[in-house]
Amino acid sequence: MDKIVSLCRRRGFVFPSSEIYGGLGSTYDYGHYGVLLRDNIRQLWLRAMVRERDDIVALDSAVILNPRVWEASGHLAEFNDPLVDCRTCKLRFRADQLGQSQCGRKPSKHPGETPECDLTEPRQFNLMFQTHVGALQDESSVAYLRPETAQGIFINFKNVLQLARRKPPFGIAQIGKAFRNEITPGNFVFRVREFELMEMEYFVPPDEAAEWHRYWIEERMGWYRKYGLRESMLRAREHGEEERSHYSSATSDLEYRYPIGWQELEGVANRGDFDLTQHTKHSGTKLEYVGSDGERYTPWVIEPAVSMERIFVALLADAYHEEEVAERQRTVLQLHPAMSPVKAAVLPLINKNEDMVARARRLYEELRGEWVVEYDDSGQIGRRYRRQDEIGTPFAFTIDEQTLEDETVTVRHRDSLAQERLPISGVKAWLGDALRRDWRSPKGD
Amino acid sequence: MDKIVSLCRRRGFVFPSSEIYGGLGSTYDYGHYGVLLRDNIRQLWLRAMVRERDDIVALDSAVILNPRVWEASGHLAEFNDPLVDCRTCKLRFRADQLGQSQCGRKPSKHPGETPECDLTEPRQFNLMFQTHVGALQDESSVAYLRPETAQGIFINFKNVLQLARRKPPFGIAQIGKAFRNEITPGNFVFRVREFELMEMEYFVPPDEAAEWHRYWIEERMGWYRKYGLRESMLRAREHGEEERSHYSSATSDLEYRYPIGWQELEGVANRGDFDLTQHTKHSGTKLEYVGSDGERYTPWVIEPAVSMERIFVALLADAYHEEEVAERQRTVLQLHPAMSPVKAAVLPLINKNEDMVARARRLYEELRGEWVVEYDDSGQIGRRYRRQDEIGTPFAFTIDEQTLEDETVTVRHRDSLAQERLPISGVKAWLGDALRRDWRSPKGD
Repeated sequence: MDKIVSLCRRRGFVFPSSEIYGGLGSTYDYGHYGVLLRDNIRQLWLRAMVRERDDIVALDSAVILNPRVWEASGHLAEFNDPLVDCRTCKLRFRADQLGQSQCGRKPSKHPGETPECDLTEPRQFNLMFQTHVGALQDESSVAYLRPETAQGIFINFKNVLQLARRKPPFGIAQIGKAFRNEITPGNFVFRVREFELMEMEYFVPPDEAAEWHRYWIEERMGWYRKYGLRESMLRAREHGEEERSHYSSATSDLEYRYPIGWQELEGVANRGDFDLTQHTKHSGTKLEYVGSDGERYTPWVIEPAVSMERIFVALLADAYHEEEVAERQRTVLQLHPAMSPVKAAVLPLINKNEDMVARARRLYEELRGEWVVEYDDSGQIGRRYRRQDEIGTPFAFTIDEQTLEDETVTVRHRDSLAQERLPISGVKAWLGDALRRDWRSPKGD
Repeated sequence: MDKIVSLCRRRGFVFPSSEIYGGLGSTYDYGHYGVLLRDNIRQLWLRAMVRERDDIVALDSAVILNPRVWEASGHLAEFNDPLVDCRTCKLRFRADQLGQSQCGRKPSKHPGETPECDLTEPRQFNLMFQTHVGALQDESSVAYLRPETAQGIFINFKNVLQLARRKPPFGIAQIGKAFRNEITPGNFVFRVREFELMEMEYFVPPDEAAEWHRYWIEERMGWYRKYGLRESMLRAREHGEEERSHYSSATSDLEYRYPIGWQELEGVANRGDFDLTQHTKHSGTKLEYVGSDGERYTPWVIEPAVSMERIFVALLADAYHEEEVAERQRTVLQLHPAMSPVKAAVLPLINKNEDMVARARRLYEELRGEWVVEYDDSGQIGRRYRRQDEIGTPFAFTIDEQTLEDETVTVRHRDSLAQERLPISGVKAWLGDALRRDWRSPKGD
């Protein structure tokens, strides 16, 4: 994990946030390549979940909703961590993680045995960030930053049902920021207080729920394999009854073998009719499906939900590779080309040669209209290749002496390091084909 | 404006948020077509500001930053509205907008003259939303939701300067949510409490600042014209000294003639060295440019800044058009095709004809890999056209009897209502060309 964090910093994928002010615990800002990678994740998720389907529409609901939403959803009552205070050191800890907690006088699971910490009984601490909307700062103006995007979907169920003329099974997908006041964030961007959720609520007839639950576990697993995560690093694990959230009838975690061990990548939950029923009760608006034949029921909900950040770390962990090539260490991100922030680099071999530079610029201008492409003429060619390897650029086109003679260029493949020559006029079509091809991790399955 | 709001609701672009709970003043959720339109705005802004340029990189910083950022930026001290309380009705009003305020006992600009309202002296109310990070709810844990994305850029200035090996002039662009606790939001999504900012900070040598300021006003004006806003509805207006924000050396508003009158669409500010100097002072980290020749200065900053929502409303207002065609009322969104949520519709003329349906589905499957395309076989063809007109789909391909005979389809043009026949095998290439062509509003300039 340290190596990934270091690469992210060095190459401008991720910076610790507010660094010049000493940071702000476990908050991160994304640099240029981080933004590009995140945008690829977002667009490929949307492509699979909305654009290639007829049965799912998109939604973008507000971060600050009417607070009654969180009363109905159960988050006000249930979305808690148990906390204890220490009467001696005045620090606060998660009661279920005392073993890992740190303070000057380390608390213990058995407070009676250590004189240093004097812990209170655990009490419930709500993980929603609280704020006030409007000019008054009293109970009437309290509001919350959403801890998930799903509730924004449920409260728009009726709008979509009517306006998009839908009949179950159909889904509503949303990507957006969510906020949780985690007491113990950490492990790079793996557990952070603000993150980007990608959630889809799929509304189905109740008797089809179990079948659709299995379907979405398979679909989402297939998506990760398609974009290069190795089979051996992925598994589905069903939650035990005691692990399940208050709304869940059944949940399976798709887990990835992160550098810190097997951890949740995505959750696929069967939420039953919990949410639509709760919002019907609390709002007085009936959230149900009524067919033209008079058929009437409250749909059940299957929810594949994942945070951008978990995919981001899984992709980088899977792609990170070090090897020795010609007695030099090479670090390379073996990302699926569709995920790579930059699709190709265009490099004049000798940056003092004006003809090479001009020819390279011309090729660069031709390609950048279609894809994110970089032009680089600074320093030795070897250093330039290594820089592209580290940001995961799958192809590099080099303009050299021979180009000026016969209008061919060298293409260098990031993973195999193979080089071949192509006519410069065919580079655009070649790159288009290469980016459409299936790709598998050189590390195997 | 009412007609636009009504269309947005009817066609699922925008819903009042939390509607089943009585809403939450001036908060909105975006439906399917709203999400698609917003994504087009985002991608076309990024294309012009980052992808087509060598001198600008992207950034995505956190919403909740170290609170010292807002001390340094001046937002804690200066980002205020003057408020007054009424001792009688207990409501709170903006002191500078008393004339427009409403309560049971309407306040007056001259409190002495109306016995109903008994107003206090104005006091400053900070527009930043406040929350607490971590388990303690005291002064030490206070944090703010960012009211702009710009500060996230300034505090990463040094990271980008070093890692992206940049030399002024260069820019950092960011798109992201921002939050302002507006006392008087309103006018649909025109003034809302949470919105999406698109800001670019362009760092330049101080003596070039005025020139770059003019450059960016022109660039941004050109972007709006390119994507179809009419010349006659756009103007640039320089701020008077008294209008300027605390950080600004000079600001020009690009204004659009909204249904509510001329209003700011985008601001292009010359922020001078205010921000880098403030953050240098408050953080102790020198934020300056040092050249390899020892040249050293604090860059000045030119900032084009616009909210997604202002562009969204301007595009819809410019595109909204009603006309009578063959004695029927037609409502059409004459959007630039690059902005249109859906690029083409594929329609079988007779939805009971299985061959037509199959042929239409096949064309649809071919096109949807490239673009957002809709297939629709429900109801009369006339109704289906009108539905596509209202969401601004520029082209509709209709599969009819003749298609089954000679493999041609009809293409219907949204703006001119012209129809022509094309070979079905050439539709994909035709659409690609059509979407690349320049487009001008049929309403003229």
